[in-house]
Amino acid sequence: MSEVRTKAELAQAAAAVLNRLSTTQKDEALQLMANALRQGQEEIITANAEDLERGKQQGTSPSLLDRLALNPQRIEGIASALEQIIGLPDPIGEKLEQIERPNGLHIEKIRVPLGVIGIIYEARPNVTVDAAGLCLKTGNAVVLRGGSSALSSNRKIVELMHAALASSAIPADALQLIEDPNRSSVDEMLKLNGLLDVVIPRGGSSLIRNVVENSTVPVIETGAGICHTYLDQTAQPDMASAIAINAKAQRPSVCNSMETLLVHQDFAQHHLEALGVQLRDVGVELRGCPETLRLLPWAIPATDEDYATEYNDYILNVKIVSSLEDAMQHISQYGTRHSECIITSDQELAERFMQEVDAAAVYHNASTRFTDGFEFGFGAEIGISTQKLHARGPMGLPSLSTTKYMIHGNGQIRG
Amino acid sequence: MSEVRTKAELAQAAAAVLNRLSTTQKDEALQLMANALRQGQEEIITANAEDLERGKQQGTSPSLLDRLALNPQRIEGIASALEQIIGLPDPIGEKLEQIERPNGLHIEKIRVPLGVIGIIYEARPNVTVDAAGLCLKTGNAVVLRGGSSALSSNRKIVELMHAALASSAIPADALQLIEDPNRSSVDEMLKLNGLLDVVIPRGGSSLIRNVVENSTVPVIETGAGICHTYLDQTAQPDMASAIAINAKAQRPSVCNSMETLLVHQDFAQHHLEALGVQLRDVGVELRGCPETLRLLPWAIPATDEDYATEYNDYILNVKIVSSLEDAMQHISQYGTRHSECIITSDQELAERFMQEVDAAAVYHNASTRFTDGFEFGFGAEIGISTQKLHARGPMGLPSLSTTKYMIHGNGQIRG
Repeated sequence: MSEVRTKAELAQAAAAVLNRLSTTQKDEALQLMANALRQGQEEIITANAEDLERGKQQGTSPSLLDRLALNPQRIEGIASALEQIIGLPDPIGEKLEQIERPNGLHIEKIRVPLGVIGIIYEARPNVTVDAAGLCLKTGNAVVLRGGSSALSSNRKIVELMHAALASSAIPADALQLIEDPNRSSVDEMLKLNGLLDVVIPRGGSSLIRNVVENSTVPVIETGAGICHTYLDQTAQPDMASAIAINAKAQRPSVCNSMETLLVHQDFAQHHLEALGVQLRDVGVELRGCPETLRLLPWAIPATDEDYATEYNDYILNVKIVSSLEDAMQHISQYGTRHSECIITSDQELAERFMQEVDAAAVYHNASTRFTDGFEFGFGAEIGISTQKLHARGPMGLPSLSTTKYMIHGNGQIRG
Repeated sequence: MSEVRTKAELAQAAAAVLNRLSTTQKDEALQLMANALRQGQEEIITANAEDLERGKQQGTSPSLLDRLALNPQRIEGIASALEQIIGLPDPIGEKLEQIERPNGLHIEKIRVPLGVIGIIYEARPNVTVDAAGLCLKTGNAVVLRGGSSALSSNRKIVELMHAALASSAIPADALQLIEDPNRSSVDEMLKLNGLLDVVIPRGGSSLIRNVVENSTVPVIETGAGICHTYLDQTAQPDMASAIAINAKAQRPSVCNSMETLLVHQDFAQHHLEALGVQLRDVGVELRGCPETLRLLPWAIPATDEDYATEYNDYILNVKIVSSLEDAMQHISQYGTRHSECIITSDQELAERFMQEVDAAAVYHNASTRFTDGFEFGFGAEIGISTQKLHARGPMGLPSLSTTKYMIHGNGQIRG
């Protein structure tokens, strides 16, 4: 039997045990894992050095090498993140509904673990620990398939966590790492219906697209963000520029940053020139529609393809529109339904935007950068779902659960 | 452009309008649809006669022809079912969470429509009306792809509903029927990411398997039911036989009926002979394990394949087990995670079964036949989900919704 299937079967058997553990038992296991990572710091750094060396030889870019690199501070951060998960409330066992039927049936809807979760991700070894912690805390077994560039690090990290689990109530089999670096091991995971209950991709758009297009196992898509901010004519100019600069430039590499600024023509007339200069001054390259170029002649012309691009960089499209409808039409055409924002002093206009724009998160007078499990107060984030089934927007622990109906009777039969 | 894509695009445009309608506006449209079906009764019966005639010529089985056939009573039933949907509470707009953040952000999680729902189903024309009613009530546009054997009936029914919508607030485009009878139109629907938000298959196992295996659009699987009932040694014998007979024979053709009876050896010793005769007397063919055959020598030997079969018929596997663990092990191996039941007077044993068995619905001392949206008091049923994402078990109106975060600020930016 293949590595993937063997490990998924072991995970499934372990899930049946995990399902019965108390919150305390799970939290104790997570604490042992955090301790083991701290104690194994040097071993992890040695393993990580192998990955870094291999990466350098293969000509990996410095920014990717940086994501891959582990040092004592980063390992401490990873261990502390596990401890933060311990501190979060356990959603499992929560009674969501209680129904008393006229025939005397007593129906309860209870939150239970999903079962076995497959996580497919790229080079960052911290995801190995984070995903393991989130899944185990919610009573799920997990099959991890990390990027081959982090294989030595991931192997060592999982080895340490396995050793920690051995003295906990959680079976070590509940945590599986697929070591086969070939793409075929991903393909096999995506067809493991009956063994994996869900697959969650975490990574770049091509990784996500592959999972969405090829998985027969249900997927939670954590997708791309082409996010917009619309500056209405009644936008307060200081607020508008503070939010626009924050949404674009505070951390351009993430999915909730802004890619296109939509500006009402009246606002543009009075304020776009100053705002354009402010954006340029913080290092943002502007690509504008023809009307924008009239006001900002130094900007680059924007193409349709630009409007459809998630730059994740210091680049911003600017488009002047003549109405809320125009703005919403552009968002509907180019948006990825992630996070969309309107800056306006007109309450009615704001409500229309919030109601009508189809996105996981819609904002009035705040930066789209807040779309994040920690910023929403969930204390954790599995990812940000851009699909509509099961979970939408930042996903906290409850999104790693499903429900079960428990029905108590005293001999009821159907008539 | 293909019929499928054209109609899906029209549906998507209509969804943006539907999204904004009040419950009253949607209910008024549903009432007009019900009226139109009653008034068009004769036209529907004429169209249905074409389907029936074609079916007969093609040698369709009498039971399939019966499912396809419409008469005044059935049409009245279909119209009344629409009126029942009108009477149900509208889940859209419900505020599910409200979060106040220390930075002053005000976050609300609101129930909103999914958008555009694709329904792929078989010969029963009542599904056309039922699915339309459920989707429109919840503010969703719907693209229906019914079986080609009911095409004339479905066309007429949709024509009448379209005419009704024309004088309502719901755009007629919100309801689309794919008329292309070729399998390729189904294949095309399953790849319409970005236009369809979810696909729900309703029908037999091969239809469902095709959708699950080929759809890149998220699917809600309404799957097969291999349901078990376990008679523990402390089961009250009268209750045990009443529930076993009900679960098997009250309506064997449905997914929540029992396919395998698991019997503790001590219970079997005293009561299986009598129960076997009772089951045989209501017309059930028994297939037994070797121990069962010793007690019921007239039964047929059961094979592994039998245990893995959803008969949907008057056939039942009977297997004697020596413990709760044995019973749960069998359920884990052969069950489809639909509905599972234990009959016992031992409260502790019952709780273990309910906790540990992985299924959408677990029962203590009641027939699995109750797994049904109407029996659960939901007033509607889109189907019974056997997957774990989004919805599990009988699906009422809320399962046709998703959520949206609405965030109000006063200039917040991320630090």
